[in-house]
Amino acid sequence: MAGERAAPLLNDELDIVIPTIRNLDFLEMWRPFFEPYHLIIVQDGDPSKTIKVPEGFDYELYNRNDINRILGPKASCISFKDSACRCFGYMVSKKKYIFTIDDDCFVAKNPSGEDINALEQHIKNLLSPSTPHFFNTLYDPYRDGADFVRGYPFSLREGVPTAVSHGLWLNIPDYDAPTQLVKPRERNTRYVDAVLTIPKGTIFPMCGMNLAFNRDLIGPAMYFGLMGDGQPIGRYDDMWAGWCTKVICDHLNLGVKTGLPYIWHSKASNPFVNLKKEYKGIYWQEEIIPFFQSATLPKECTTVQQCYIELAKLVKAKLSSVDPYFTKLADAMVTWIEAWDELNPSGDKLPNGAAK
Amino acid sequence: MAGERAAPLLNDELDIVIPTIRNLDFLEMWRPFFEPYHLIIVQDGDPSKTIKVPEGFDYELYNRNDINRILGPKASCISFKDSACRCFGYMVSKKKYIFTIDDDCFVAKNPSGEDINALEQHIKNLLSPSTPHFFNTLYDPYRDGADFVRGYPFSLREGVPTAVSHGLWLNIPDYDAPTQLVKPRERNTRYVDAVLTIPKGTIFPMCGMNLAFNRDLIGPAMYFGLMGDGQPIGRYDDMWAGWCTKVICDHLNLGVKTGLPYIWHSKASNPFVNLKKEYKGIYWQEEIIPFFQSATLPKECTTVQQCYIELAKLVKAKLSSVDPYFTKLADAMVTWIEAWDELNPSGDKLPNGAAK
Repeated sequence: MAGERAAPLLNDELDIVIPTIRNLDFLEMWRPFFEPYHLIIVQDGDPSKTIKVPEGFDYELYNRNDINRILGPKASCISFKDSACRCFGYMVSKKKYIFTIDDDCFVAKNPSGEDINALEQHIKNLLSPSTPHFFNTLYDPYRDGADFVRGYPFSLREGVPTAVSHGLWLNIPDYDAPTQLVKPRERNTRYVDAVLTIPKGTIFPMCGMNLAFNRDLIGPAMYFGLMGDGQPIGRYDDMWAGWCTKVICDHLNLGVKTGLPYIWHSKASNPFVNLKKEYKGIYWQEEIIPFFQSATLPKECTTVQQCYIELAKLVKAKLSSVDPYFTKLADAMVTWIEAWDELNPSGDKLPNGAAK
Repeated sequence: MAGERAAPLLNDELDIVIPTIRNLDFLEMWRPFFEPYHLIIVQDGDPSKTIKVPEGFDYELYNRNDINRILGPKASCISFKDSACRCFGYMVSKKKYIFTIDDDCFVAKNPSGEDINALEQHIKNLLSPSTPHFFNTLYDPYRDGADFVRGYPFSLREGVPTAVSHGLWLNIPDYDAPTQLVKPRERNTRYVDAVLTIPKGTIFPMCGMNLAFNRDLIGPAMYFGLMGDGQPIGRYDDMWAGWCTKVICDHLNLGVKTGLPYIWHSKASNPFVNLKKEYKGIYWQEEIIPFFQSATLPKECTTVQQCYIELAKLVKAKLSSVDPYFTKLADAMVTWIEAWDELNPSGDKLPNGAAK
């Protein structure tokens, strides 16, 4: 199908960002898929501990000392002792595409028993357009063997550029702590062979476990917020990024796809620990989500940075009453953009935030 | 999962509406699934020709003479020589659920090679809630083995009643004439094992080939318009019903699901004939779809009938400039509701149009 490009992908176009690696089996399992690419590992915990990356991988590793050294006082916007620190990797990358994955995510198999090349599917998703303005009942019309169905307006068939590819998880589903507690044995065994565009105006719960995006198109919106050490919540880093990203994609006429590729999520995190991290988010989200569902950005905002700064203002104005945390978060959103622009000096002037 | 009911379905709850039967293999193939139910066959062509229904089926058959006799002058709202006449069957049914299917749709097989009981899956879809207010990345959270993902607001997990179940097609996809002409050999071989709610605010192209709905909740919106004999377009009957239905479902807080079940669509209709029927619709839809995307109904409209009458007014006011056809269609929409209420005298007073 037009718009899809065959593998191999170019290693000067994509970085793989990993928040931390607690399990070296992870890299060994992904070796055939990851070895051609550059890895950016952002260590989330104690900087005195060293992550030993096996031979053969091309990587750079950042710990907290590196983040402090590179960002100076602006390092305050990067979470500590939480995988939310991964967004520092998005900032220091210079590549067009980012794939980010958790270290408990392994290679999944498709129903024919073959290993799924998650990276290849993400790039297919990102290289073919999205269709946020009208729903296609046969899912992604740009996939082989699919097209737009009868009744799909022809003026919309060109689609819009895809900014985000949200992949899913076999085995352990991405559930919140209450659902984990209630359904400890639930496993996701259903392989749904679909990719679809999330319609314009629809917010979604974006999971950071298996996620790719076009850094040139949407990078500065992929801020994973303030989580972990010293913060009142955790496990909302990717959600925050997803809500902000979707509002900005809708505003800038960019697409978000979800569905394939699957990874094999090997291990459920501890539901009791998760509950402690999540519980404030669980009631806060009842107000946060309506906020994002109704958030609109001024027409004058034509870059991701402008949109993001505007969103930070809205967060401060509308969510600070929920908890003082949101005042701090809104300030951190601004700091994040300042830091992004400092490290990416040419990226903030072009339409849609596209870098040269 | 709570909300799903096991088969068997009750035959006093569901009617199967078929626009016409040109091929008796159709009924033989569906015999094990359809025999327990009542069929309403609405003959779309020459009333002097008789459809021979094989032994064993419980059915009623209406031809044009019957429609004229039952509706009198209001029969003008029912299309002639077009499968759009099927909506007469929705009107004369007294059951809670309707399943409608074309006579070139056969029993499909799932990837394990088993016959798919389309009816059973439609009823599963209709009996479990929908989630139009927020997107669930693991598709229908009410299916076995699935649930709401992390980040899904708890206040929205009860869902809303499902009004429509839109099934898909293996083999011949539901393409428009231009796509049929360009891709004569395309076949849909991808079995996507998913059901999903179409988000609130998102219009979709509803196909009438394999469709089920809750007649009590949404019946009066399922008008298939004016097509065929004496009309300037064809093949937009189901589209028209889908646009109106989705706007009204969004207004009345009802859900629309799409995905499973698949049927086997055996034969592509003639693309040259289709082009002739469709070509006006192809450019009209460029204006009709934005109209429906922005259509809003007054809060005072609390029944499907009230919503539909209001929509008819909007159609007359906003689409008559596209073509005089829409003035006629808007009038027919009003006639349709009048006829519906005449045949269903108790159904127009309760909230959401629910009948006693």
